[in-house]
Amino acid sequence: MAEPQSSAGDVTRAAAPQGKPPLRVGMVGYAFMGAAHSQGWRTAGRVFDLPREPVLSVLCGRDADAVRAAAERHGWAATETDWRALIARDDVDLVDICTPGDSHAEIALAALAAGKHVLCEKPLANTVEEAEAMAEAAEAGCARGQLAMVGFNYRRVPAIALARRMITEGRLGTLRHVRVSYLQDWLVDPDFPMTWRLRKEAAGSGALGDLGAHVIDVAQYLAGERLAGVSALTETFVRRRPLPEGGSGPVTVDDAAVFTGRFASGALASFEATRYATGRKNALRIELNGERGSLAFDLERLNELFFHDGTEPGAHAGFRRILVTEPDHPYLDAWWPPGHGLGYEHTFVHQARDLVHAIAEGRRPVPSFADGLEVQRVLAAVEESAAKNSVYTPIVF
Amino acid sequence: MAEPQSSAGDVTRAAAPQGKPPLRVGMVGYAFMGAAHSQGWRTAGRVFDLPREPVLSVLCGRDADAVRAAAERHGWAATETDWRALIARDDVDLVDICTPGDSHAEIALAALAAGKHVLCEKPLANTVEEAEAMAEAAEAGCARGQLAMVGFNYRRVPAIALARRMITEGRLGTLRHVRVSYLQDWLVDPDFPMTWRLRKEAAGSGALGDLGAHVIDVAQYLAGERLAGVSALTETFVRRRPLPEGGSGPVTVDDAAVFTGRFASGALASFEATRYATGRKNALRIELNGERGSLAFDLERLNELFFHDGTEPGAHAGFRRILVTEPDHPYLDAWWPPGHGLGYEHTFVHQARDLVHAIAEGRRPVPSFADGLEVQRVLAAVEESAAKNSVYTPIVF
Amino acid sequence: MAEPQSSAGDVTRAAAPQGKPPLRVGMVGYAFMGAAHSQGWRTAGRVFDLPREPVLSVLCGRDADAVRAAAERHGWAATETDWRALIARDDVDLVDICTPGDSHAEIALAALAAGKHVLCEKPLANTVEEAEAMAEAAEAGCARGQLAMVGFNYRRVPAIALARRMITEGRLGTLRHVRVSYLQDWLVDPDFPMTWRLRKEAAGSGALGDLGAHVIDVAQYLAGERLAGVSALTETFVRRRPLPEGGSGPVTVDDAAVFTGRFASGALASFEATRYATGRKNALRIELNGERGSLAFDLERLNELFFHDGTEPGAHAGFRRILVTEPDHPYLDAWWPPGHGLGYEHTFVHQARDLVHAIAEGRRPVPSFADGLEVQRVLAAVEESAAKNSVYTPIVF
Amino acid sequence: MAEPQSSAGDVTRAAAPQGKPPLRVGMVGYAFMGAAHSQGWRTAGRVFDLPREPVLSVLCGRDADAVRAAAERHGWAATETDWRALIARDDVDLVDICTPGDSHAEIALAALAAGKHVLCEKPLANTVEEAEAMAEAAEAGCARGQLAMVGFNYRRVPAIALARRMITEGRLGTLRHVRVSYLQDWLVDPDFPMTWRLRKEAAGSGALGDLGAHVIDVAQYLAGERLAGVSALTETFVRRRPLPEGGSGPVTVDDAAVFTGRFASGALASFEATRYATGRKNALRIELNGERGSLAFDLERLNELFFHDGTEPGAHAGFRRILVTEPDHPYLDAWWPPGHGLGYEHTFVHQARDLVHAIAEGRRPVPSFADGLEVQRVLAAVEESAAKNSVYTPIVF
Repeated sequence: MAEPQSSAGDVTRAAAPQGKPPLRVGMVGYAFMGAAHSQGWRTAGRVFDLPREPVLSVLCGRDADAVRAAAERHGWAATETDWRALIARDDVDLVDICTPGDSHAEIALAALAAGKHVLCEKPLANTVEEAEAMAEAAEAGCARGQLAMVGFNYRRVPAIALARRMITEGRLGTLRHVRVSYLQDWLVDPDFPMTWRLRKEAAGSGALGDLGAHVIDVAQYLAGERLAGVSALTETFVRRRPLPEGGSGPVTVDDAAVFTGRFASGALASFEATRYATGRKNALRIELNGERGSLAFDLERLNELFFHDGTEPGAHAGFRRILVTEPDHPYLDAWWPPGHGLGYEHTFVHQARDLVHAIAEGRRPVPSFADGLEVQRVLAAVEESAAKNSVYTPIVF
Repeated sequence: MAEPQSSAGDVTRAAAPQGKPPLRVGMVGYAFMGAAHSQGWRTAGRVFDLPREPVLSVLCGRDADAVRAAAERHGWAATETDWRALIARDDVDLVDICTPGDSHAEIALAALAAGKHVLCEKPLANTVEEAEAMAEAAEAGCARGQLAMVGFNYRRVPAIALARRMITEGRLGTLRHVRVSYLQDWLVDPDFPMTWRLRKEAAGSGALGDLGAHVIDVAQYLAGERLAGVSALTETFVRRRPLPEGGSGPVTVDDAAVFTGRFASGALASFEATRYATGRKNALRIELNGERGSLAFDLERLNELFFHDGTEPGAHAGFRRILVTEPDHPYLDAWWPPGHGLGYEHTFVHQARDLVHAIAEGRRPVPSFADGLEVQRVLAAVEESAAKNSVYTPIVF
Repeated sequence: MAEPQSSAGDVTRAAAPQGKPPLRVGMVGYAFMGAAHSQGWRTAGRVFDLPREPVLSVLCGRDADAVRAAAERHGWAATETDWRALIARDDVDLVDICTPGDSHAEIALAALAAGKHVLCEKPLANTVEEAEAMAEAAEAGCARGQLAMVGFNYRRVPAIALARRMITEGRLGTLRHVRVSYLQDWLVDPDFPMTWRLRKEAAGSGALGDLGAHVIDVAQYLAGERLAGVSALTETFVRRRPLPEGGSGPVTVDDAAVFTGRFASGALASFEATRYATGRKNALRIELNGERGSLAFDLERLNELFFHDGTEPGAHAGFRRILVTEPDHPYLDAWWPPGHGLGYEHTFVHQARDLVHAIAEGRRPVPSFADGLEVQRVLAAVEESAAKNSVYTPIVF
Repeated sequence: MAEPQSSAGDVTRAAAPQGKPPLRVGMVGYAFMGAAHSQGWRTAGRVFDLPREPVLSVLCGRDADAVRAAAERHGWAATETDWRALIARDDVDLVDICTPGDSHAEIALAALAAGKHVLCEKPLANTVEEAEAMAEAAEAGCARGQLAMVGFNYRRVPAIALARRMITEGRLGTLRHVRVSYLQDWLVDPDFPMTWRLRKEAAGSGALGDLGAHVIDVAQYLAGERLAGVSALTETFVRRRPLPEGGSGPVTVDDAAVFTGRFASGALASFEATRYATGRKNALRIELNGERGSLAFDLERLNELFFHDGTEPGAHAGFRRILVTEPDHPYLDAWWPPGHGLGYEHTFVHQARDLVHAIAEGRRPVPSFADGLEVQRVLAAVEESAAKNSVYTPIVF
């Protein structure tokens, strides 16, 4: 392994606008999530009126050349090749963790110990034990004014935030059904090659931890309550995949998970996470049915929320398509005129916005590490149920 | 109870067109299903070129005045008030059973014993034991040239028949996922009154037997294979409902059922049946994902089938909406020009058409009583799993 | 030409239920429209509680064998080969004209002169002059208790009838825009052969009279007011087509028409009728925008009406999909439970129902021949504008 | 009027990454379009690998305080209050004109005269004469290596770019129909106050120049050919509107325009532009029907393109929804994984990307000022036709 390297940093690029205290970000990892977070940090202050100005201070990755190229591309002022060095820097106020799940706990605990704020990608960790340690450290950090958030970015899709607002206002009444599925199809081809995401030691789990974590979080977020228990089936459809070096290797994670559950209030839930839904590219589909109304959403049409008002006369009732682009919709007052839709990466702009506000105002951000821990407990119960012949498995909080 | 009554029958109304042998139908029951079946029998020979002409011969119901009014309305030539009398008549070739599930077995067994053909509404029976006896009797009848069919009419939605054809042609390849839900909302209001459908002794089960039977049959029909096992949760959300006579009575059936399962081939399945999905009126939704393609359907848009061809180049691929109204679509050569859609009751016209052909040609019709028995076994496994803490319950065939 | 032939008629098949006075129908023509009207007459009394019972009495067509086969198929009791003979029969109360447009006027005038009620397919005639004579005769007939209706069947799509009801209730307020297009694609292939529909002498016009007549009628019906003037372009894309006998012949009608207009109230209108919209099978699309709301409809999804209530708060507003299958929707109380959709031919059942009621109650039915004449005047103005360099052409009433 | 003011500029914020030549932008105007263009310039180089690095150099607006606040918000290094001063600066390579249409010509001509590249918002000008002068100056500039583009940003919606690619590949064959409408609703309320956009002297025209310019450009772009002539109706529904100072003032522009036309090849076209389509927020709807296929698009669902392949067997054909998020779709290789949609402002990122490439490679960018002039000629013909009783008005090129 190479000697850790620091680039001096092009301080001019990291300068914050006059008058606003900067919030200097050090980010670990620069693949898909790193690109999305960069976009979020860079844009948030240009669109929203923030109390502190995010500064893309230091980017960290193991390969010195690659991380320098990524920093250049994404606009980071300096680079590190060792995340411990990044955490040690004085010009970093917040550590943003965009690495695979097996390193989340170690980095987050060290960052909190070093006095930094933390944003950690989901899922919070690969095990409940790690997540518990992280939630505990976050709680202690919070008491010291260090704030920690987990990156369930879909809470920041305006349509989902609007759904939550409408549920809070009582538009659905007592919930009866929650059904959430997250359908992708990138593993359909059996010749798609082996990756670290298909190895349990690195990824923790497969579709479950990747997509299932989202469906669980968004379900609990929208319902405003916890799942009480689950019954699950998981499956690995293609058990060996080609290795880059030739031959094939075993897939040691789930390809898909289907599970049912009960919410604390008695509502029934139905979940699915898969990478084998041919033709579905990013279909996070949500439907909630309550005594007074229903809501439906599909991430492939992220600017739309469908609402059925069950209190209307039947002759005029129907699911209405709310185009979530009005100025009184969540986050929308800062964007474009009605009908001019947003895209996927806007969730990261909103995430950055909300976290900056929380830090500036000393409030605990949501979703907190405790929220991330809750999701982890549900994931663990899903795996336990799947291992025990699908028996209904209560979730212990 | 009143004396059984026979009306002499207006034979002129029952006359078949010249030259075609009649198929004289005696129908028991005349509520929702009776009206739909009447429409089917009356129309089939007007639209399709049938080998025998269905004749609406005798209608049977307990209340003499009511059954006469219904016969008048729906165009039946004669009436009976005792189903045994109907079965005994010489001018009945086929007994069509449209009663609640608790009388299916007795009537069907008697009709088969009397040498009649039988069409029995779904679910085939209220218990596996009854269904076994019926399937056995149907098998014996078949050997004698008496044919029996169970009324899973949704197999005759042209879009669903087309889906089956495409699956048979290999357009989906190896199946990975089957998800079917049947969402209605007529019980959402807790003040909706008690009916026999909410009492176990009459209805057998609630949403499960009513809607769940459809989702199981259509899933097995489309997949072309059997479910191997299921894991289930059921719930009764509103446990007492107003009685017509005042006060309230206990609801003794399920309001909703969610269950997962595995097909024999290893495909994962996910099911839901509910009467509490606010705003969903008749949403039988089907999606199948295979290695080569996917299909999707919603009964609320019954003239449309969505197909994703996974073998196309990604740049041009997408779910296409097939408007199932072309002359080379199932059943459509007899109907209207392209784009002129069909409705719900056309499934009963198609059912009548197919059964008449099977009888005339001496072929076993599908779905047979054996198919109905298979569904019954799955329903029983769902109930057993729900009663046993959702444990995965294999289906014994 | 063959000697006119009468079949004695199978009187048993024409018998009406006891107690209700029959309405004996004699229908001229038995192609597409004849089949649809047969379905309407046969079914109306089985589904709706009618004051008179429609009886499929006599079917008329030029070819004796063909008309007998059609009568057998569609359930008519007797046949004629000369429409004059049909009109002369005592057992015909109503003449239903399903022939091409060039014979409408002659048959309708003769039928009215003979004291019959009349139902005439659209467009009412091929010229304004013919239509004027027909409307005048219908007016005179009405004074004698003979009623005449023109078959703009789409007014009887429940969603369109609901739209009219909502507009009447003021849900749209002052109208600003009406846009209606009728898109089909059966002429896209330049090798599609010549038919009478493409010859001016028989068909009067092409897409304009066939599809354009519908868009004009439905626009005026929904708006509740007349068009004041139009500006039009028409085009014949494929000017010669193969003849059955070999070689090719000239197409002498329009393939497509696009036109704009103004309603009396000042609303702007936009229309299109074409047989060249590849992939659109029967897309009669309607949208009306008013100061208080909007409505949208597509015949390819005929059970759905989309409504935007402009008086709602923006945050919750959106086009809602009303599934027009509720008991308090037009015509729906006689059909199936909510969510169980209707099809194309139900419009003919509803048309029969409404006409029987009008006749029994001595009310002038709508759309009347006067309404058909109005459409004819607009069609003439469209053709005049197209011939005069698209100049805005007022419609003279 | 205040003394023109220059801010020294925070040069550190304007620095380009090492190694890439900067492209220093000076932008005039900072309202809606200014914000969108800022987003485009800031993001393009972070997502795409550009040959030159856009630098947000100078922002110009009349009010010194307001422009400084806007520069701070949107990330511009310096400010000017006089556009002539901006054009005179050495640290500006490209002038980006985001002002109302009445100043486009003057600024663009001056910028070209000063040796700058130019990006000008649409419509190119308020009159054909201005547009001709601009196109001529752009042509001359092009010969000197100065490049000019007009901001028809919708050409850079990936779905629209894909549509163009498919049309170029021959997927539609000979075009028969083009229909494009742009529906908004922000003027529905008659109490919405007067703005400069409703005064002819400032805005040139109303819905026509604002929305109609887009529909004309996108129609000609996709068809790959010019409109030959048009026939038009325009209307001003609400003729007086409240003034901020009290009382009311006259609206002197159109509220809506509907027009038809012919393309050079003979295809029929139908257009609509309105601000009165209640519930339609940003519905730029496009449909093209060709002999071999059809395409459809709605800007309210901008990540989707609908394609009907008319060469497929009818039984499997249908409009397919292409989710335009695949790596081989236009612009998408630089963004997110499949199914992760883009938003409105991405069109400005793509516009910036394409213009930077054109400048670096010395290629004439599209849409050029000549393309903008073509649109202007069509707009003029629409107005002329509307003024002359809708007579068909050829477009002179």
